[in-house]
Amino acid sequence: MRDAEIIAVGSELLTHDKLDTNSLFVTEQLNTLGVEVRRKLVVGDDRVRLEAAIRHALGHADIVVLTGGLGPTEDDLTRDATAAALGRKLIFSEEICEWIAERFRKFNRTMAEINKRQAYLVEGAEPLPNPRGTAPGQWIVSGDRVIVMLPGPPGELKPLVVNEMIPRLQKMLPPLAIRTRFYRVAGMGESDLDALIAPVYTKVENPATTILAGMGDIQIHLRARAATAEEAERLLEQVAPQIEELLGDRLYSRNGDTLETVVGKMLRERGATLSVAESCTGGMIGERITNVAGSSDYFVGGFLTYSDEMKVRLLGVDPALIAERTAVSAEVARAMAEGARARTCSTYALSITGEAGPESATGIPAGTLFLGFASEAGSEARKINVPGDRNRVRMLGAQSALDFARKQIR
Amino acid sequence: MRDAEIIAVGSELLTHDKLDTNSLFVTEQLNTLGVEVRRKLVVGDDRVRLEAAIRHALGHADIVVLTGGLGPTEDDLTRDATAAALGRKLIFSEEICEWIAERFRKFNRTMAEINKRQAYLVEGAEPLPNPRGTAPGQWIVSGDRVIVMLPGPPGELKPLVVNEMIPRLQKMLPPLAIRTRFYRVAGMGESDLDALIAPVYTKVENPATTILAGMGDIQIHLRARAATAEEAERLLEQVAPQIEELLGDRLYSRNGDTLETVVGKMLRERGATLSVAESCTGGMIGERITNVAGSSDYFVGGFLTYSDEMKVRLLGVDPALIAERTAVSAEVARAMAEGARARTCSTYALSITGEAGPESATGIPAGTLFLGFASEAGSEARKINVPGDRNRVRMLGAQSALDFARKQIR
Repeated sequence: MRDAEIIAVGSELLTHDKLDTNSLFVTEQLNTLGVEVRRKLVVGDDRVRLEAAIRHALGHADIVVLTGGLGPTEDDLTRDATAAALGRKLIFSEEICEWIAERFRKFNRTMAEINKRQAYLVEGAEPLPNPRGTAPGQWIVSGDRVIVMLPGPPGELKPLVVNEMIPRLQKMLPPLAIRTRFYRVAGMGESDLDALIAPVYTKVENPATTILAGMGDIQIHLRARAATAEEAERLLEQVAPQIEELLGDRLYSRNGDTLETVVGKMLRERGATLSVAESCTGGMIGERITNVAGSSDYFVGGFLTYSDEMKVRLLGVDPALIAERTAVSAEVARAMAEGARARTCSTYALSITGEAGPESATGIPAGTLFLGFASEAGSEARKINVPGDRNRVRMLGAQSALDFARKQIR
Repeated sequence: MRDAEIIAVGSELLTHDKLDTNSLFVTEQLNTLGVEVRRKLVVGDDRVRLEAAIRHALGHADIVVLTGGLGPTEDDLTRDATAAALGRKLIFSEEICEWIAERFRKFNRTMAEINKRQAYLVEGAEPLPNPRGTAPGQWIVSGDRVIVMLPGPPGELKPLVVNEMIPRLQKMLPPLAIRTRFYRVAGMGESDLDALIAPVYTKVENPATTILAGMGDIQIHLRARAATAEEAERLLEQVAPQIEELLGDRLYSRNGDTLETVVGKMLRERGATLSVAESCTGGMIGERITNVAGSSDYFVGGFLTYSDEMKVRLLGVDPALIAERTAVSAEVARAMAEGARARTCSTYALSITGEAGPESATGIPAGTLFLGFASEAGSEARKINVPGDRNRVRMLGAQSALDFARKQIR
C-alpha cells in the first residue's frame, strides 16, 4: 500500500526547456510517509494518451498522483481522462461553481463561462479546497487505490499536498518510522566505492542504500524503515558503522554537508583563515568557498593567476623556477600557495596549477594538475591526473583541491 | 514516424532531489528533426517495471530513447530489460570488452570483473562508441521502431546524441527542412521581454518561438519548418529582423554563444586582455571567463578580494575611501578595477563589489552591487540592485558584470 506513481500533465512539460519540478515536492512529502514513488510520467494534453496512462498507473500503483491539467481550457483534460479511466461520470458541483464565482468577485473580475469546467468533480470524488487558485484538487478512492488530482502551478500544488493530501494518506496508512544517514565521499570513483561497500549494504534490504555519483563527489543515502524510530535506528546501526569504517578518511560528511561547507567549518573551529591561488580553475575554488553564507569569516580572498607572468607578478613565484620546472609542477604549486599565504597573511593557502585542455600549451598532457597547500609548518604539493574534457578537469581539480585542504587542515 | 518516448532509468531519479535533465537535451535534439516527444517516463532500477515500460513504449512510439542504467553494477538493468522486452538475447562482445579494458589501461587502472557487463549487446544492436565512458550506447531497429540506449552521465550522453543518434535518425526520416535562430539577451526580465516581442512572434505559428529564461539570461529560439531550407529561411525572415530590432543593444548573441564567449571574442578581435577583481562573487566571473577554451589568450588573471583588508592590500584601494564610502560603493568598484588593471597590466579590468547576503555586514541591503570597469580611458561604475537569495545575487552579479564589460569594451 505504499507504491506511488506521479503523472504530470501538460504539453509544455514535453518541450526542451521545461521540467516537471512538482514531482520533487510530491516525492519528498510522500517519502515522509514511507511511500515510494515507483514511476514518474509526463504526458501532454492528449486525451487518449492521458486516459491510457491513468489506467496503467491504477493497475500498478497504490497511489496515483496527477498534477496539472485542471485549468479551464479545452487543453485541460485531467478531469475527463480520470473519469473515463475509472469508468465514472463527471458531475457538475453547484457548490464549487459558486466558490469559483466568489473568488472572481473577490478580485473584481467576472467569472468566464469556461471556468465552469473547473466545477466538475469525478463521481464520488472529494474536492480539495485550493485557496490560491480556482481549480480544486480531487481525492478519489477506488477499491484499494487512491487517485489524487492536484493543480499544476507549484504555489497552488504545495499547500494542497501538505494540508490535504498528506493528512488523508496518513490516516489511511499504517504508521511507519523512517531514519536516514547521508554520507558524502570525495577522492574515489563510483565503481571503486561500490566494490568497497557493496558487501556491507547488499546484505540487508532495510536500510535501503542509494548511491549518487557526481563530479568527484559521491553521496550515499541510507534509509531505514520500521514500526518505531528506535527500531529504524537499530537497523541503521547494523550497517552504518561498518560503512563509515570502510570509507575512513574519504568520508567527509555524515550529514550531507558539501565539501566547501566542511572545510569552512574546520576553519571556523580553528579560528583560521584561508586564501587561494588558482590557475586552471580560474576562480572555481573561490566561488565554491564563498557560496557558503558567512564564508567571509574565514575566507580572505585570493589570486587568479592564469598566466605565468601573473604567477610571478601577483604571487612572487620565481621565474627561474617556472623556467626550470614549468608552471605545471609541484614546485610551482607550492610556491603559489606560499606566495598567496604571504601576501594575504592567511593561516592557510590553497593553490592549483595545471593543464585543463583541450590543447596543451605546455606540452604537459591535459588533465595533469598540481595542488599546493601552505601553512605555518611549510608547504605540500600533490599531483593528480584527471581524465576528461576541460570542464571535467576543472571541476575535479577544484574538488580535489578542496579535499586536499580538508586533509591538510586536519 | 516522428513520435518519441524517452525513458530515464535510475532509482536516484525518483528521489526528491534529482530530476531527469537528460530528457531536455534529447528532446531539443529530436525536435531538430521534427520528432516530437509524446511521453517522458522515469523508472527505477527495477527489472520488471523497466521491461514493462519498454514494451509499452514500443507499442505507442516510433522512437524509444532509453537513458541510464548502462553502468557495470547489478542495478544497471537497461540492457537486460531491453533484450527481454524485444525477446532477444544479450550477446557478449569481445571487441567491446577489449575496448573497455584498453580504456582502463590508458588511465593506469585495472578493469574490474563487473565492467564486463558493459560489453553485452542486445542481439542485432549496433554499438554506439562512447569516447567519454566505458559503456557504449546501443542502436536497435525492430520492425518500424527504433530503440536507442544512451549512458546516463550527461557528459557521455550528449556527444552520443549529437554524433551517433541524430545522424542515424536523420538518414531514416523523410527530409524536413528546419531553420533556427538562437538569440541570447541580457539585462531584462522574462515578462518584459515577452511583452516587447510577443506582438511580433504571436502573429505566426511557423516559426515556433520558445523563450527560455535563466538567471539574468534569456534565450529565444525561433524554429521554422518547411519542405525546403529556402522556404524555412523565408519564414524566419518574416519575424527575425523585427525581433532583433526590438531587442537592440540587449541582444548579445545571434548564435547561442554565452556572454563569456562573446566577451572573449571581442577581446580577441581587439588583441586586448582582461583582468578581474571580485568581491561578493568570489571567483564566479573568472570561472566563467576561463570556462571558454583558449581564454588564456586574453584573460590574464585577477584578484578575489573578499575582505576590505584584501581590497587595500591586493588592489591598493585607499583605506580612507573604504572608510568614507564603504566597500560597497561606486568609488571602491572603480578603485578595484583600476587597481587590478595597474597590477596586472591588462588592457581592461572588471570589478564587482557588493552585499550578497543573507545578512548584511555593512548595513547596506543585500542585493546591492557595484560594477567597475577600467581601461586606458579611465574608469566607470554602475550600481545594480538584485532581489533574491545569496546564490541569485551572486549569479546575477556575475552576469551583469560580464554584460557591463561587453558594453564598455564595445
